[in-house]
Amino acid sequence: MEENQIIAQIKNIIQNGSDEDKQALASVVEGISKKQNGECKTYLAGITHVSSQFLDDGNFEVIIPIQPLIENPLNMAHGGITATLLDTAMGSMLNLKTPEKTACVTAELKVNYIQPGRGKYLRCIATILHQGKQLCFSEAKVYNDENKLIASGSGTFFVIPL
Amino acid sequence: MEENQIIAQIKNIIQNGSDEDKQALASVVEGISKKQNGECKTYLAGITHVSSQFLDDGNFEVIIPIQPLIENPLNMAHGGITATLLDTAMGSMLNLKTPEKTACVTAELKVNYIQPGRGKYLRCIATILHQGKQLCFSEAKVYNDENKLIASGSGTFFVIPL
Amino acid sequence: MEENQIIAQIKNIIQNGSDEDKQALASVVEGISKKQNGECKTYLAGITHVSSQFLDDGNFEVIIPIQPLIENPLNMAHGGITATLLDTAMGSMLNLKTPEKTACVTAELKVNYIQPGRGKYLRCIATILHQGKQLCFSEAKVYNDENKLIASGSGTFFVIPL
Amino acid sequence: MEENQIIAQIKNIIQNGSDEDKQALASVVEGISKKQNGECKTYLAGITHVSSQFLDDGNFEVIIPIQPLIENPLNMAHGGITATLLDTAMGSMLNLKTPEKTACVTAELKVNYIQPGRGKYLRCIATILHQGKQLCFSEAKVYNDENKLIASGSGTFFVIPL
Repeated sequence: MEENQIIAQIKNIIQNGSDEDKQALASVVEGISKKQNGECKTYLAGITHVSSQFLDDGNFEVIIPIQPLIENPLNMAHGGITATLLDTAMGSMLNLKTPEKTACVTAELKVNYIQPGRGKYLRCIATILHQGKQLCFSEAKVYNDENKLIASGSGTFFVIPL
Repeated sequence: MEENQIIAQIKNIIQNGSDEDKQALASVVEGISKKQNGECKTYLAGITHVSSQFLDDGNFEVIIPIQPLIENPLNMAHGGITATLLDTAMGSMLNLKTPEKTACVTAELKVNYIQPGRGKYLRCIATILHQGKQLCFSEAKVYNDENKLIASGSGTFFVIPL
Repeated sequence: MEENQIIAQIKNIIQNGSDEDKQALASVVEGISKKQNGECKTYLAGITHVSSQFLDDGNFEVIIPIQPLIENPLNMAHGGITATLLDTAMGSMLNLKTPEKTACVTAELKVNYIQPGRGKYLRCIATILHQGKQLCFSEAKVYNDENKLIASGSGTFFVIPL
Repeated sequence: MEENQIIAQIKNIIQNGSDEDKQALASVVEGISKKQNGECKTYLAGITHVSSQFLDDGNFEVIIPIQPLIENPLNMAHGGITATLLDTAMGSMLNLKTPEKTACVTAELKVNYIQPGRGKYLRCIATILHQGKQLCFSEAKVYNDENKLIASGSGTFFVIPL
């Protein structure tokens, strides 16, 4: 796509777009900038503005703000985003704990969608069930900003050499 | 965020970004434009450039191009995107077939990740296993452009009144 | 089958069977007697000698002794038995808590097999994640007598009128 | 347990038991005899009277008769038995195809329960999705004698050295 065309589309969104369109534009542009500046590893992490940390109890937390960009037609967080959040939380945690020169890839992921993903943000707490040399098992839960249980997930991860 | 700041970030990406950064920017801007113009129902569908159709055999096909925006740090399609593709394919198909004034929401989704999601695009084929008045069951498979099996999924869907 | 034939088989097991054969015979005969006497609801519960109770924290516990009858060719608890234990624990708990004239049936069950099911018994602890009018979500864990985590499971249950 | 006590219980079932009790007794005694005679690998396979074979299309079929022994309190096949059938079909098939001195163990199993398991028997058809050196993926479907789809399952299997 030509630069001119991109710029024309950007102008059109800024001048004629809805508030949601402008919010989505700001969000993705800021997200790509973050990736450009090395503040995050993937564009997906950038544009969804996830943040993560280990908690004092050893669990791993990933937070994703709910914004128009990630909503489904029913105006709640898209189920695929909730799945992405769960996979990211379990997978990132395991990859931070796996021995050097290895990586953990997802072999299988299951998600239970318990309540609609509405609120200011989704917060995922991931736990390791078992960390083996070749197979790892993890589970995680997703809450909204009112601490309501939104989703529950579990996954099997496979350790590969890098 | 101020418009000025967005525009400054856009300029910085266009002038100083890598080819991947520019490709990602073009992709998201075009995607938001598509949503702005009513060409798709969600920003997520817009920026991931999915396309979908019923096939002659009654199955439902959703195609998503593989682009930097949806890749994980290992440069393949992020597992969350594959999950989104599976959920979208099964859920969209069921929602197109559900009676008026009802919707199908995902109660549960499971994904098996079989091969790395590499190639030009991912193609998901979804099938209905059972369409009940309150519960529906579906399964789907994801292939790449070389027809390699990338992932397999299944889901339970719950019919709600609108 | 003729009674004579049953009795001949029983005699043959008692006279010529291995210790395991005799133990299996004793176990199934005692189990069918328990069902005959109304001490359990199903033959399966009888012959597997499960016992269950609510714990003080509101969770539900089901214990199943490990015996030759339920072992796989690798001499550990058969994965299908572990699945049965998880389904029984989650389903029984929900059915004890569901309103009168309704029952909870399993729509979907997922099991992660974490360690070989070896030891004196398997103990399953089930928790309710969400009890809705039509859909319920539960999760459960299976430990052996040394409190090692053997398996983890989750399920979606559907409330039907009786 | 004393032999005398077993024999007393057997007599009591034969003399005072219901038709179902006697049918269950005959079934388990015959099953243990089959294991005693080396006709099957596990007591569980014996008492549930499963039979299995590869089909011409390369898929693997396991059939289990529906009998009182495997029914739940709602008089259909217990969900745990359906899970056992799916795990057995996928696992047996993979173990028959795995290289010498290796075995395939179940890392994860998911079952969707689509229709009540009623009829003369359940027939499970298992397919290999991917057979890797360390991970295998399989899926299977369960039908009753009227070819109605009763359940659907998928699993992840891990190859271990023997």
